[in-house]
Amino acid sequence: MTTLHYTGVAHNFNSGPSVLPREVFEQASQAILDFNNSGLSILEIGHRTSLFQEVMDEAVALLKELMKLDNEHEVLFLHGGASTQFFQIPMNLLDEKETAAYMDCGTWGTKAIKEAKLFGNVDVVASSKDKSYTYIPKGFTIPSSAKYFHYTSNNTIEGTQMHAIPETNVPLVADMSSDILSTSVDFNRFSLIYAGAQKNIGAAGVNVVVVKKDILGKVSRKLPTMMDYRNHIENGSMLNTPPVFAVYVCMLTLRWLKQQGGIPEMERLNEAKAKLLYATLDSLPVFRPKVAKEDRSKMNVVWVMDDVELEKKFLAECKNNGMVGIKGHRTVGGFRASLYNALPIESAIALSDVMKDFARKHG
Amino acid sequence: MTTLHYTGVAHNFNSGPSVLPREVFEQASQAILDFNNSGLSILEIGHRTSLFQEVMDEAVALLKELMKLDNEHEVLFLHGGASTQFFQIPMNLLDEKETAAYMDCGTWGTKAIKEAKLFGNVDVVASSKDKSYTYIPKGFTIPSSAKYFHYTSNNTIEGTQMHAIPETNVPLVADMSSDILSTSVDFNRFSLIYAGAQKNIGAAGVNVVVVKKDILGKVSRKLPTMMDYRNHIENGSMLNTPPVFAVYVCMLTLRWLKQQGGIPEMERLNEAKAKLLYATLDSLPVFRPKVAKEDRSKMNVVWVMDDVELEKKFLAECKNNGMVGIKGHRTVGGFRASLYNALPIESAIALSDVMKDFARKHG
Repeated sequence: MTTLHYTGVAHNFNSGPSVLPREVFEQASQAILDFNNSGLSILEIGHRTSLFQEVMDEAVALLKELMKLDNEHEVLFLHGGASTQFFQIPMNLLDEKETAAYMDCGTWGTKAIKEAKLFGNVDVVASSKDKSYTYIPKGFTIPSSAKYFHYTSNNTIEGTQMHAIPETNVPLVADMSSDILSTSVDFNRFSLIYAGAQKNIGAAGVNVVVVKKDILGKVSRKLPTMMDYRNHIENGSMLNTPPVFAVYVCMLTLRWLKQQGGIPEMERLNEAKAKLLYATLDSLPVFRPKVAKEDRSKMNVVWVMDDVELEKKFLAECKNNGMVGIKGHRTVGGFRASLYNALPIESAIALSDVMKDFARKHG
Repeated sequence: MTTLHYTGVAHNFNSGPSVLPREVFEQASQAILDFNNSGLSILEIGHRTSLFQEVMDEAVALLKELMKLDNEHEVLFLHGGASTQFFQIPMNLLDEKETAAYMDCGTWGTKAIKEAKLFGNVDVVASSKDKSYTYIPKGFTIPSSAKYFHYTSNNTIEGTQMHAIPETNVPLVADMSSDILSTSVDFNRFSLIYAGAQKNIGAAGVNVVVVKKDILGKVSRKLPTMMDYRNHIENGSMLNTPPVFAVYVCMLTLRWLKQQGGIPEMERLNEAKAKLLYATLDSLPVFRPKVAKEDRSKMNVVWVMDDVELEKKFLAECKNNGMVGIKGHRTVGGFRASLYNALPIESAIALSDVMKDFARKHG
């Protein structure tokens, strides 16, 4: 078998789907031609074979190990992306007359609130809408009567991040799509964690849900079979045909993550990447980060420039230096550099250098 | 770039995920290393880039062309598999006091009925449960008051297939997961068609839904954003991050299908494969197909043997001849050979030869 090489030259700052480790691309490419010397492509194996069961088992075991999960927490690989979780969570956890507490700190939180309102009452206990979601509210109160408290740990679009878990006895539910596995967190404090895989876990097309069993089975409504988490737990994420290849890419990425040193090593590198970029931005007046300093995201560094012509020139400069995915989300404009686990520190250094060079010429 | 080669030696009779064309494996493997000379892996490109938009557009256009769909029909690539459609369909089409007509002709139809009952009334107008789903009922009546009529066009597990579309004025809804694109059908007669991709369309992890716009927006319940087909239509199947790679594999498979001569050529080959295997089975008393002759599936050929020891020997014989996926579903036992579009006729010939050889030795 030929050795496969990924020779991507670009610095990939995509916000998701986003960069994955080179080894993962090479192993995934190989598995499409011949999976584990089975003579079969990973795309043509049955999901009920031991070939795939081993992949699923290893992916689940790796997540449990990396996240240091206790036995009360189940790991699921589900269809549908985080957007499906926006409604699946209240459908499973919130009865019609009950109230859930939500935090409104960005685009995704707002969407989650909209879906929850279809199933019960929503108490928005904190919001940063007043300042276009450029900060994380503090000192808010979560009523102890709330069925659960939902928040987005990292706001991919706005570039803010919660740096601590709120103190509360209310069950915690978090959308960790864009910062899961990037920093040390006591994941066992959560009753439910969900994350689209296409940022820090693997490829688009699968969603990780970590759920504490004791919160399930308490609503009175009848749930569609595919929407009831308990059915997925009982069937080991194979209630129906799972997204086989997407799960496989997750497993490869989790293996890589463990080999690198797990979450602590990711945290060290992510800190270094973010620190470098924010320091550069703060030192160069031509760039303007809009987010409150203490709430800055270590995953998505967001900034604007006050001159449209200069913005265009800077974008061109990034492109000339082999950088992709640097443009900000269309709703906030400006720029965004996503620094997920698999982004090499060399890419952050290269971007910092381009910024400095640009400021010298245009600052 | 090295040329990639898939050299799978096995005859793959898997029921899904199942065999795909060799070219598709090679192109997909290549795209993971470098997608269209972009310097990026298909797994790390943004779904809102023109790179991926072209993939989605081509996949949709190819399906419309191959299925000869009129402009009233929309093609969607959705998360969740056919099992999600079991509840998403009644959720979108059936109000609480209304009645939908369903056909109960196998495992998947039974599951669809169970989910529909959560949303409205279900009238099971035809069933073959009395004979363990070994035939397709005829001469049944679909009440004209039914909101829609739902059936499974091919029963993957039981090995039966509907060879004609029922005559009715009621909107038709069909689960075509295991025979879509395999035979010429007037797809425009349907109001909704759905199919998990992992048999005749591409890789596991995406679901095709073809929907006629005029049946939507008529129920009174509020729909979760991700469950409302209209939102997916409006957003061109990119309401949230789509399963990028799975859609890409579909596009490659559809391209291949068109190059082969489209559905008519598939039909010719599928007929030949099925005819050969059924003729062999009928000529050898050691094998016993249980399905009514006129209802035999051209996609999934199912049979038993009356001697457990011989069954084991035959399974071993198949394995020795490089055959995988020949074991019947655990609920029905025996054997199953799935003959999807991408299964080469050589594999059907090889299986027929093994059967004849086995019968000579043990018949």
